[in-house]
Amino acid sequence: MNCDALKKAIREVPDFPKPGILFYDITPVLADAKLFQQSIAVLCERHVKQKPKTVAAIDARGFIFGAAVAQKLGVGFIPIRKKGKLPFTTLDESYDLEYGSATISMHVDAVKKGDTILIVDDLLATGGTAAACARLIERQGGKIVEIAFLIELAGLKGRAKLTRYPVFSAIVYEGG
Amino acid sequence: MNCDALKKAIREVPDFPKPGILFYDITPVLADAKLFQQSIAVLCERHVKQKPKTVAAIDARGFIFGAAVAQKLGVGFIPIRKKGKLPFTTLDESYDLEYGSATISMHVDAVKKGDTILIVDDLLATGGTAAACARLIERQGGKIVEIAFLIELAGLKGRAKLTRYPVFSAIVYEGG
Repeated sequence: MNCDALKKAIREVPDFPKPGILFYDITPVLADAKLFQQSIAVLCERHVKQKPKTVAAIDARGFIFGAAVAQKLGVGFIPIRKKGKLPFTTLDESYDLEYGSATISMHVDAVKKGDTILIVDDLLATGGTAAACARLIERQGGKIVEIAFLIELAGLKGRAKLTRYPVFSAIVYEGG
Repeated sequence: MNCDALKKAIREVPDFPKPGILFYDITPVLADAKLFQQSIAVLCERHVKQKPKTVAAIDARGFIFGAAVAQKLGVGFIPIRKKGKLPFTTLDESYDLEYGSATISMHVDAVKKGDTILIVDDLLATGGTAAACARLIERQGGKIVEIAFLIELAGLKGRAKLTRYPVFSAIVYEGG
């Protein structure tokens, strides 16, 4: 699928969330009915014939794309969240950030052995969050059919952390 | 639509996020393909013939239902977020919490005068967040066609803050 219209709609916001960072703002894509539908279609198209059992996504922007993909495919949805946000018993995984670390959690009953899972997120940057998400799913015996991103910042080399999985990105920016 | 199956799947978690609170956990609804589709269908059904221009929702659980509703209706999506999370110029609204206050933000270009907006959230509790969300949209000239919740805690009287708008809830618990 040609993603030029999506790429054209993404707004570049300098110095957000901090000085020196160029932020790719996807809200103009979301706000436009056609572009939003196209962004979901491009994440779904490799999974229409052989559907995953469930789509997993990480809060908060990942929820937007992941839930819409699950709705379009007609499958279930698993929320993966920052530690402390999920109410039932969780599994946790930590990963390194530029300064310090972060921990994400998934309910222990979200994935059963042999379940096929499509992970969806808005942005592949350093890949740490997606890799931790994949580890949570694999610890419960789930099989990751793909990790699909709307945007990839190729300069940050996030794919190097995800070499064990099929990775798809709709729009690639060469920088970081 | 009969929502008994949805209600049966909702898991009651005592003492989350703090002692004395009974939390209604919707993740078993999300994880089940049929129940997730049903939860989205019941939020959409009054809007299929006359569609809103856009669906607005508040992070993080609101994004799950709001984005899936927007996908199913084939319309755009507006994320409303805690202050500081949106990259472009925002409008802000504050509202009271039990202790202290909170502020939510929306991009200034998310709503244009006369736009019809469906607000979607998972839970109607005290109604403060939804009322603030509605004020943000009305400040930009948007018209709120409905505020739709999956769950309403009737004992907290959130509807009293939303009397100016059509309010729908799929599942009502009498307590708080």
